[in-house]
Amino acid sequence: MRLSRYFLPVMKESPAEAQIVSHKLMLRAGLVRQQAAGIYAWLPLGTRVLHKIAQIVREEQDRAGAIELLMPTLQSADLWRESGRYDAYGPEMLRITDRHDREILYGPTNEEMITAIFRDAARSYRDLPRTLYHIQWKFRDEVRPRFGVMRGREFLMKDAYSFDLDEQGARHSYNRMFVAYLRTYARMGLRAIPMQADTGPIGGDLSHEFIVLAPTGESEVFYHKAWEQDRSLDVDADDAAALQAFVGGLTADYAATDEKRDEGREREAGEALRTSRGIEVGHIFYFGTKYSAAMGLKVQGPDGSDVVPQMGSYGIGVSRLMGAIIEASHDDKGIIWPEAVAPFKVGLINMRADDAACAAAADDLYQKLSDAGVEVLYDDRDERGGAKFATMDLIGLPWQIVIGPKGLANGVVELKRRATGEREELSAEAALAKVAGR
Amino acid sequence: MRLSRYFLPVMKESPAEAQIVSHKLMLRAGLVRQQAAGIYAWLPLGTRVLHKIAQIVREEQDRAGAIELLMPTLQSADLWRESGRYDAYGPEMLRITDRHDREILYGPTNEEMITAIFRDAARSYRDLPRTLYHIQWKFRDEVRPRFGVMRGREFLMKDAYSFDLDEQGARHSYNRMFVAYLRTYARMGLRAIPMQADTGPIGGDLSHEFIVLAPTGESEVFYHKAWEQDRSLDVDADDAAALQAFVGGLTADYAATDEKRDEGREREAGEALRTSRGIEVGHIFYFGTKYSAAMGLKVQGPDGSDVVPQMGSYGIGVSRLMGAIIEASHDDKGIIWPEAVAPFKVGLINMRADDAACAAAADDLYQKLSDAGVEVLYDDRDERGGAKFATMDLIGLPWQIVIGPKGLANGVVELKRRATGEREELSAEAALAKVAGR
Repeated sequence: MRLSRYFLPVMKESPAEAQIVSHKLMLRAGLVRQQAAGIYAWLPLGTRVLHKIAQIVREEQDRAGAIELLMPTLQSADLWRESGRYDAYGPEMLRITDRHDREILYGPTNEEMITAIFRDAARSYRDLPRTLYHIQWKFRDEVRPRFGVMRGREFLMKDAYSFDLDEQGARHSYNRMFVAYLRTYARMGLRAIPMQADTGPIGGDLSHEFIVLAPTGESEVFYHKAWEQDRSLDVDADDAAALQAFVGGLTADYAATDEKRDEGREREAGEALRTSRGIEVGHIFYFGTKYSAAMGLKVQGPDGSDVVPQMGSYGIGVSRLMGAIIEASHDDKGIIWPEAVAPFKVGLINMRADDAACAAAADDLYQKLSDAGVEVLYDDRDERGGAKFATMDLIGLPWQIVIGPKGLANGVVELKRRATGEREELSAEAALAKVAGR
Repeated sequence: MRLSRYFLPVMKESPAEAQIVSHKLMLRAGLVRQQAAGIYAWLPLGTRVLHKIAQIVREEQDRAGAIELLMPTLQSADLWRESGRYDAYGPEMLRITDRHDREILYGPTNEEMITAIFRDAARSYRDLPRTLYHIQWKFRDEVRPRFGVMRGREFLMKDAYSFDLDEQGARHSYNRMFVAYLRTYARMGLRAIPMQADTGPIGGDLSHEFIVLAPTGESEVFYHKAWEQDRSLDVDADDAAALQAFVGGLTADYAATDEKRDEGREREAGEALRTSRGIEVGHIFYFGTKYSAAMGLKVQGPDGSDVVPQMGSYGIGVSRLMGAIIEASHDDKGIIWPEAVAPFKVGLINMRADDAACAAAADDLYQKLSDAGVEVLYDDRDERGGAKFATMDLIGLPWQIVIGPKGLANGVVELKRRATGEREELSAEAALAKVAGR
C-alpha cells in the first residue's frame, strides 16, 4: 500500500480526552475515531489489526473443535423473557422499540439465542457435544464509557457456547476453551493469567477470567510469581484426563482477582506473591443447566430418557484486545505491534521522494516485497524524513526499511527492527530476503 | 469437517412461512434461522457462504483501489441532523434512546458518518481521490419483512464512498465501482445487468442498480437481449478515458427498471426488447456535493482555494446476494452452489458407516482431501444412503464423492458433479486429483 493513496490520519499531539496510553496511541496512530460516547469507527489501519486479531481467535476456536455461526446483533425481548433475564438485566441492556412497537434489544451476550437455536435443532445425545461460536458486535450501555475501546459500548466479541450430556463432558469442553484461550493470547504476544472469577449476571459455579498485566488495568490482581514464566501449552486436548491434569497443573499456581482472594493460599505463596493491575481479555463460565432447563432444551439420552444439556459460555473481547496489546507493547515513540497482529509487516520509507534514483529504488523494492507476499506500507510521500520516521515509529510496524541517497550510493538500505531499535545496513536484496524469509 | 460433529439442521419439508425458493432452501438446507421478523441467525453452513461472498466483494473493492475501514452499527442522531436526514428519513430508520436519553440510531447507511470522518482527516487536494468502504450490519425497519434474507431488517452490506476533487474525477471513481461490481457478480456466477435508476433518499443525479434476473424478483425490468450474452470485463480501470468508453459501450445497450423506462429506446430495441423480473443486488450513486456541502467538508485545492469534494456511494447487499445466488442456481433437489461461494467444495459420502472397509477408505480419502487443502464435508454418520444423497443434493456442494462396498470391491468410488448430475466411477486417487486439481 502506498501511503500517498492510503487513509492514515495520524496526530502529533495526544488528544485531551484520552487518559490511558492505548487510547492515546489508537487515536494518534489513526486506528480509531470516536463517533459517539463509547462508539468507535475503525480506520483502515485499525481495521487491518482487528481482522488479524479476529482471525487468530477464529483459528484457535476452530482448532478447539468449535463451530462458527453468526447470530444477529438485535434480539427479541421475548427470547430474554424465557430465561428471566429481560427484567433481571440492568440498564446496560439497550432496549429498543421497533416501528410495530415490538420490544427488541441490542444483544449484550447470546446465551438465550444459542439455546433457542440448539433447542430447535438437537434431538439426541448424538447431537452432543457441540461448541458453537460467533464473532459479532455487541452493545452494553456502560454508564461511563472510557479508556477508548477498552470500555466502549459497541464492541466486537467472540462468544462460544458449549452443550454437553453431562458434567464431566462439560468440564472437558471448558478445559478445551481454557487452553484455546491461552493459545490465542500467546499467538498475539500476550501473557494472560487465568484467574478464578465471579460469575456475575451469566450465572454458574465455575468461571475464569483471563487477565493481562498492565498498570492501567481496571482491577487489582494477585498471583504467584510462577505465572511470570512462559509455559508450554502442548497438550492433547482430545484426551479428557490429560487435559484435566494439564489445566489442574496450571491452576495449581495461585492467581485471583480482588473478589476471589484466598488468604490461606496467599500465605502459602509467601514472598512469591505478586500483585499488579490487570486487563480482562476473556471470561469463561460453566453454568450447568441454568439456560437449558429454563428454556426447555432437552435431548434423548442413550437410554431413551430426556437429558437437559450442560452448558458453558466463553467470551473474548476482540476489539478490547487491541487496546490490551498496545498497553502491553509500546514505548514513548508509539506502538510496537507483535508481528502476528501488525497491520503491515514492513514500513518502507523513501527518504527523498523528489530524488529520481531513490524513488526508482524504493518503487522497485516495494514491488518486490509485494510480489513476495509481504504486507508493506510504502511511505512514498513528499515529506521530510523526520516526519516519516516519527510516523513509522508511531504506527509500530515490526520492520522499517529506509532508502536514502547516501546509502543508495553505497548500494545499501537501512533495516530497522521496531521492537529493539536495532539497525543494520545491507543490500536491498538482503533486506528483502530477511523480511520475506521470516 | 465430519458431519457427525457438525451443526447442520436440515429440514425435509418446506416451512410454511417461506414463499420463494431461496427462502425455502435457506431454511431447509440449514443456512439460516429466523430470530425475529426480518432478523436471521446464520447457521454454520450459511456463515461459511456469507464469509465467501463478503471476501469476493472485499477483493474486488481492494482491486478497484478502495480502502477498507469499519464503521459502527450505531450512530448519533446529531450526525444525521447535520445533513437534514434525521427528520427526512422515514420509519425505516430504527431510532433508539440510550440510558442517558441521548438519541442514537441503527445505521441504515453511512453517508453522514464517512463524510464526518473524512472531514476530520482530509486537508488538501493531495488527500483526494479516495474511496473508502466497509462491510457492516445495517438495519432498516421494513414495514413487512419477507422473502427471508432478501428483504430482511438486519442485513450485511458493503457500502463504499468516493471523494474527488471534481466531477470528472468523481465520474472516474463511479466508473471504477461500476466495473468492480460487474466483476464481483461474475465471480459468484451471477449475471447482473446495470440499469439506470432513481436515486431515492440518497440523492444525486446519476445512479445505477445492478439487477439479477429471476422470476421472483421484486421489480419489473426491461432490457435489450444483448445483455443475455457474456461480456468481457477486461479494461484498464486506471485509464479514465478508456474506462469511460468501456462503461459507455456497456450502457449503450438498453436496460431500465420500471421507473426509468424510455419509450424511444424501447422502440429502437424492437423485437430485441426483453422483460423480466429482477432482484436488486447493488446500487451506486453519484450525488456531487450533497453531503460534503451540507456538512462543511472542504479541502485546499492545488491553487490554494477551498474545494468541496464530489462524492458518490456504492452499496452491495452481501447477505441478500446469498438469496439471489440461490434464486439463480437451484433445481428441485436443492441448491447448486457456484464453486466460488460453496460452503465446502466436496461432499464425501460413506454409504455404509457400519462397514469397516468402507469407513477406512472414506476416512483415508477425507484425510487426503483435507491435506490437499480441499474443503470437504464428510458424511460419516450412520444413516441410510438415500438420506445422505438427499442431504448432499439439498445443500448443493459442487462435487460429491460416494464410497460404497460394491465400488470398493472394484477399486472405484463415484464422483458426481452437482450442477449437471454427471457421474463417473474412478479410483479414489483419480477422484482426489480431479477435485483438488481444479
